[in-house]
Amino acid sequence: MSFPQYQYFNVSSPEKWVAHVEINRAEKLNAFSEPMWLEIRRVFENLSDDAAVRSIVFSGSGDKAFCAGLDVDYAATPGSFFNPDSKDKADAARYAARVRRFAYEFQDCISSIERCEKPVICVLHGVSIGLAVDIACCADLRVCTSNVTFAVKEVDIGLAADIGSLTRLPKIVGSYAWVKEVSLTARNFGAQEALRVGFVNSVFQTKAEAMSEALRLAKIMASKSPVAVQGTKNFLDWSRDHDIMTGLRYTAVWNGAAVNTTDIPVAMASMRQKKVPTFEKL
Amino acid sequence: MSFPQYQYFNVSSPEKWVAHVEINRAEKLNAFSEPMWLEIRRVFENLSDDAAVRSIVFSGSGDKAFCAGLDVDYAATPGSFFNPDSKDKADAARYAARVRRFAYEFQDCISSIERCEKPVICVLHGVSIGLAVDIACCADLRVCTSNVTFAVKEVDIGLAADIGSLTRLPKIVGSYAWVKEVSLTARNFGAQEALRVGFVNSVFQTKAEAMSEALRLAKIMASKSPVAVQGTKNFLDWSRDHDIMTGLRYTAVWNGAAVNTTDIPVAMASMRQKKVPTFEKL
Amino acid sequence: MSFPQYQYFNVSSPEKWVAHVEINRAEKLNAFSEPMWLEIRRVFENLSDDAAVRSIVFSGSGDKAFCAGLDVDYAATPGSFFNPDSKDKADAARYAARVRRFAYEFQDCISSIERCEKPVICVLHGVSIGLAVDIACCADLRVCTSNVTFAVKEVDIGLAADIGSLTRLPKIVGSYAWVKEVSLTARNFGAQEALRVGFVNSVFQTKAEAMSEALRLAKIMASKSPVAVQGTKNFLDWSRDHDIMTGLRYTAVWNGAAVNTTDIPVAMASMRQKKVPTFEKL
Amino acid sequence: MSFPQYQYFNVSSPEKWVAHVEINRAEKLNAFSEPMWLEIRRVFENLSDDAAVRSIVFSGSGDKAFCAGLDVDYAATPGSFFNPDSKDKADAARYAARVRRFAYEFQDCISSIERCEKPVICVLHGVSIGLAVDIACCADLRVCTSNVTFAVKEVDIGLAADIGSLTRLPKIVGSYAWVKEVSLTARNFGAQEALRVGFVNSVFQTKAEAMSEALRLAKIMASKSPVAVQGTKNFLDWSRDHDIMTGLRYTAVWNGAAVNTTDIPVAMASMRQKKVPTFEKL
Amino acid sequence: MSFPQYQYFNVSSPEKWVAHVEINRAEKLNAFSEPMWLEIRRVFENLSDDAAVRSIVFSGSGDKAFCAGLDVDYAATPGSFFNPDSKDKADAARYAARVRRFAYEFQDCISSIERCEKPVICVLHGVSIGLAVDIACCADLRVCTSNVTFAVKEVDIGLAADIGSLTRLPKIVGSYAWVKEVSLTARNFGAQEALRVGFVNSVFQTKAEAMSEALRLAKIMASKSPVAVQGTKNFLDWSRDHDIMTGLRYTAVWNGAAVNTTDIPVAMASMRQKKVPTFEKL
Amino acid sequence: MSFPQYQYFNVSSPEKWVAHVEINRAEKLNAFSEPMWLEIRRVFENLSDDAAVRSIVFSGSGDKAFCAGLDVDYAATPGSFFNPDSKDKADAARYAARVRRFAYEFQDCISSIERCEKPVICVLHGVSIGLAVDIACCADLRVCTSNVTFAVKEVDIGLAADIGSLTRLPKIVGSYAWVKEVSLTARNFGAQEALRVGFVNSVFQTKAEAMSEALRLAKIMASKSPVAVQGTKNFLDWSRDHDIMTGLRYTAVWNGAAVNTTDIPVAMASMRQKKVPTFEKL
Repeated sequence: MSFPQYQYFNVSSPEKWVAHVEINRAEKLNAFSEPMWLEIRRVFENLSDDAAVRSIVFSGSGDKAFCAGLDVDYAATPGSFFNPDSKDKADAARYAARVRRFAYEFQDCISSIERCEKPVICVLHGVSIGLAVDIACCADLRVCTSNVTFAVKEVDIGLAADIGSLTRLPKIVGSYAWVKEVSLTARNFGAQEALRVGFVNSVFQTKAEAMSEALRLAKIMASKSPVAVQGTKNFLDWSRDHDIMTGLRYTAVWNGAAVNTTDIPVAMASMRQKKVPTFEKL
Repeated sequence: MSFPQYQYFNVSSPEKWVAHVEINRAEKLNAFSEPMWLEIRRVFENLSDDAAVRSIVFSGSGDKAFCAGLDVDYAATPGSFFNPDSKDKADAARYAARVRRFAYEFQDCISSIERCEKPVICVLHGVSIGLAVDIACCADLRVCTSNVTFAVKEVDIGLAADIGSLTRLPKIVGSYAWVKEVSLTARNFGAQEALRVGFVNSVFQTKAEAMSEALRLAKIMASKSPVAVQGTKNFLDWSRDHDIMTGLRYTAVWNGAAVNTTDIPVAMASMRQKKVPTFEKL
Repeated sequence: MSFPQYQYFNVSSPEKWVAHVEINRAEKLNAFSEPMWLEIRRVFENLSDDAAVRSIVFSGSGDKAFCAGLDVDYAATPGSFFNPDSKDKADAARYAARVRRFAYEFQDCISSIERCEKPVICVLHGVSIGLAVDIACCADLRVCTSNVTFAVKEVDIGLAADIGSLTRLPKIVGSYAWVKEVSLTARNFGAQEALRVGFVNSVFQTKAEAMSEALRLAKIMASKSPVAVQGTKNFLDWSRDHDIMTGLRYTAVWNGAAVNTTDIPVAMASMRQKKVPTFEKL
Repeated sequence: MSFPQYQYFNVSSPEKWVAHVEINRAEKLNAFSEPMWLEIRRVFENLSDDAAVRSIVFSGSGDKAFCAGLDVDYAATPGSFFNPDSKDKADAARYAARVRRFAYEFQDCISSIERCEKPVICVLHGVSIGLAVDIACCADLRVCTSNVTFAVKEVDIGLAADIGSLTRLPKIVGSYAWVKEVSLTARNFGAQEALRVGFVNSVFQTKAEAMSEALRLAKIMASKSPVAVQGTKNFLDWSRDHDIMTGLRYTAVWNGAAVNTTDIPVAMASMRQKKVPTFEKL
Repeated sequence: MSFPQYQYFNVSSPEKWVAHVEINRAEKLNAFSEPMWLEIRRVFENLSDDAAVRSIVFSGSGDKAFCAGLDVDYAATPGSFFNPDSKDKADAARYAARVRRFAYEFQDCISSIERCEKPVICVLHGVSIGLAVDIACCADLRVCTSNVTFAVKEVDIGLAADIGSLTRLPKIVGSYAWVKEVSLTARNFGAQEALRVGFVNSVFQTKAEAMSEALRLAKIMASKSPVAVQGTKNFLDWSRDHDIMTGLRYTAVWNGAAVNTTDIPVAMASMRQKKVPTFEKL
Repeated sequence: MSFPQYQYFNVSSPEKWVAHVEINRAEKLNAFSEPMWLEIRRVFENLSDDAAVRSIVFSGSGDKAFCAGLDVDYAATPGSFFNPDSKDKADAARYAARVRRFAYEFQDCISSIERCEKPVICVLHGVSIGLAVDIACCADLRVCTSNVTFAVKEVDIGLAADIGSLTRLPKIVGSYAWVKEVSLTARNFGAQEALRVGFVNSVFQTKAEAMSEALRLAKIMASKSPVAVQGTKNFLDWSRDHDIMTGLRYTAVWNGAAVNTTDIPVAMASMRQKKVPTFEKL
């Protein structure tokens, strides 16, 4: 596999069919500036279309942080959206239009991880706050290290988060009371708490172990029929957003084509013969 | 109580007001063929209408399995939907129509358990994979044995599940990350994990103990006002599929008639007098 | 801060920006009559509008109960809705209209806790059954004592609950199987079980300790930007009721105005200077 | 083509691929009893599955009426749902359950016309009131004679219609004010008014002419690709019930299989060669 | 019948069971100030609850206008919401919260006309612009004079209407293109155009004739079973907001109680005997 | 104003604040190839962001056609999506994934007209079939010539339209019966019929007159506050897709910022002084 070069992300292939996306900004604790979220959308749109990729591990470089949220130095730069000058705000209605457009694009960039047709496994370690939680909510699975520090941090800077944490978190974990507590207090929470409420799938001592587990999961998913795996991700996200009947109808319509695949006889034959199946690209 | 005879299901009454439905195909690990899901719809539609029934225990016969999913021998039979000959697939659009109609009916048969107006308690033991999970998701309560083996198995045969597991599971358990893990990897999971994520209500050492608990729960439900119990099941499933306001309005409209019942004074008097209430049939 | 006098509720301010609402009917185990739910709506609507209040602790007076549900003596009073005379029921359609109107208003009164723009932390101790669960479901956070007794009690009196427990509970906790069990059996459940399923945030030995924790949380929330905190509560409740895209769009539209606040620079400066920020009233 | 014999409906084939369903009860003005709506469901489910049928004309026998609504003699029969004896109503909650179940089945029977995968063209003449409107709302097209008399008649007998007129009519015609007027007054309306508001497609002097137009339309639809025609009906009804994005996604998923059909090259070649295309059965 | 006295509205009873609400501010062209919309909510909530009222005619006093929209003199008053001083706007987020709360209450007041359980027939004459359209959209039927002047006027004052015109109009009339034209240009439109698009039910030469028609319609509705009429209004508004299946289920649940009324036999007997039925209060 | 150069579209500014987009492919009857719909998305995204543009006229070049739908020569080109070779279809599931991705992008390109924040007025003349209807459905207003020929043409080529006609048309016009007729028969319909059902706003003898009317409308919209006009378009499209309450809440939240604009006092002052207002860019 070969991938385009990106400025802020390393994309590699640790195994056949598996891609690894790494935020490459350890010196800033992998904090995000606007060019980064514009680029991350290109990364995940490319991987979504790349038939040589069946599953994706997503992690941050360095020892200290998966991602420290928004890059405050970038935010403070004159000309940044986060540092408007007073004439930008001269008319509150026009400024609001600017905010909306900015937020729509920012949301769309981060949502590209969720829209990606292949499963994404996020490895979380160290500082993982603010925007890191928005990002992690878009991944399908989350594994973390025991030293991880999570926080839905936005209220601490006077902001109600609008890049997805508050929209997605209530549909991800099993306690609305807990979602409200961490969102309204902005307090830190750690690996065990994240595991208990169902935010992460598993916890490991070291980043290396967490990476290893993510890769193991990615390899399993990559070894299955991509028709089945990508359909499964799609059905789950569709069903989250619709009532039961709309979910059932949609899955039946989708499978009208999807069961008409050689992957099914290939998978079944491999199972009987206890061989590793080979599936065509998708 | 007397029930119709069925070919693949034993239906009996272990206690007044309680029905027991048993999948009667232990020699095939209670795996399902098409005639079975057509018949199970009749079973649950009859029980839903049967005023002598107030709660239902649903289990599998034999020691080894609640249900091993789809009966692969049936699926391999010439003429089975799962074994089309090539001319069935000559036109992909026409084959898709056939798949949709088949899936709609299959979904409708399994959903009959959810539609049944009386609460259904499912007892899960041994092999409980694939279609067994779709079925279990339609029950109201789930108890299991410690030796149970669950799997959302469909991706292993090249298929994204469309009979309800992927539609219902995200609304049943408390971790979307976990749902995605088990659905995308098809890995087995056991009783303790199912308990932790909220898929099952409780775990027992033996099938006999699990059956006993299911019967205990069924008897409790059968001892309450059927107006109240059936309304409660209905309100919960309605509310799962609608927003809060639509839920509140609907429950108030329903109760316009439902509170106009003698069950309320009967229940209250029994409570005061510490007697067992007797409720009319519903 | 000063508050209006209420008949059934003590409203005080234990800390700057924090209000404490106490059900003041310990002699009746804080059970509710109709005048009480009409008054509680006024309490929470006033607090929602009161710019001197940023977070609210809600608890019951006395040692024995947060709330024993509906006041059965009130319910038995001639002229009470719950004690209709036979001519009220002469025409079932007209009686249903009366039930609907009564239920809509009752629902609206209890929902005022959820509608309140400021976060509400409910302290639950002792008897907390029936209507107490409907009420607690409307709060944002719930802390309890280890001696608390919860029950979705309505089926025991022949009733399917319509004041919100059955509508909200499936969206609050992480096991639909558990919701169905406690709702269909009306059995008691305690603090540890409530913690495990995510119904409560934390458990304390004594009511004093639980009150202390609630106050601690309330103070934290009151110390943050009210623009951020009230936006966060609003976004979470909106997102619970809508699909992801509707949630993302709405939050971006809201923030068009909300980020145009001095709270953000104030919060950021305080963070840098490690000082306590001061936010204007909202 | 050959069809099953039905008791209350004549089903014939006036043209290849076209079925004609006629209500065969002219002596009762084609008024409906319960056995009739149970049978009409079988009629339309069979036609939906019958690959020899591509479009359906639906009309009433005799000169006087398409359908005079509910058969009042049937309704007055002892044992009919509409003539309960007082013990059926002894408990209003139990009677409500009976009403609900009855209404669900009645709705489901009439909705079978809408669910039918092939387009249905309804020919309306003479008396067409009450249930006739519920039925007509389920058809895809409606043509009528100039002497037709329509009425949403239910309020005249103390009833708010629940078999579909009030649910579907606001989504069929172009004036909500008009829907409310005819529904709340139960007044008659005629052909020209029905045409003006968009309830009917066209108006003809005689029943023969209206039948002829319906047959002409049915033949056109039957001459087109059944993949395209049945998909089109399905997309329109789906889109009526969902938001734009859910509509767009669903149609793209469906067409994943549907465009993979020989009907497209067959249709295109026929167009170029100005020949009549021949499509395989569906 | 006797009604409370109101400051801005005359409420009278021109006929048994019929109420007439008249905006009593002809000298201001019936333009609305905040006290007026607060009062109109009380008017319609009282009428909704008043069992002596079965239908309502709503009109404006004087010859010149049904309603000229917002009272600009009121809006210009210091202290009015529409005339904030600069310190109200010092923080755009806080000002937005004030706008939201104001708009929610304003919307709720006007929506009281729609929420009113009895049908409301609005008589429109002369100037009927801006808020007049928001108000008229909440009525069930609309009749007008040929001299009426309508306009969705808000864009002319720099505002996108938020009191309901833009939310309700697309669901009331039969041309989305027309809705966009009149909303985006703020141009006037008259009686014939309003009739053609389905906004009004009928057009009359004089206000007296329009009033007479409204009264005629109101009397017809008042002569029918109130169980049926109020159910019909409710079903239509519910169905407008929900999909077909949610509409069908809800209507069946409602009718569980509603068909259990003496109005049905009373109505049927009257029909047979060609007598005027007498229905009990509702 | 200056605009980028495009290959297939002429973009000009006939008046201050008004843009004119013309399909520039008269020699092909303005039929669309894939590069064209990819480019049209860029055209409308740029116009949406361009603060110098307040309204848009959209038309086709030449005398014969607004747009003849899909360019059949392009479609027949080897390598075109519409001309797959047999190996593309070797696996029906993989081919379906390709179709979906193609359709999603195609839909997204055409939907850019609807997403454009400024109002779009479409001028339709001559041949306007197939894709032309999908496109026209995304515009806000539609004016046409008396010689226009419309057709929802897709069933004639074996296809159920999936680029938006079937999703949007039922929500645009006032007769679902008519939508089904033209969609299921693919028959032509002309200007007067389009006017009658509400598909077009007005009809003109010549293309020049229609262009002139579109420009007149565009100038009116461009003369109003852009805060008001863009808010109005947004509110209408949001409300079409959501229930009334979700519509009301959203509009109030949006206006929290939007009413905090100088456009309101500017507009009001201009009205009083009968001067032309000048609004800042948006």
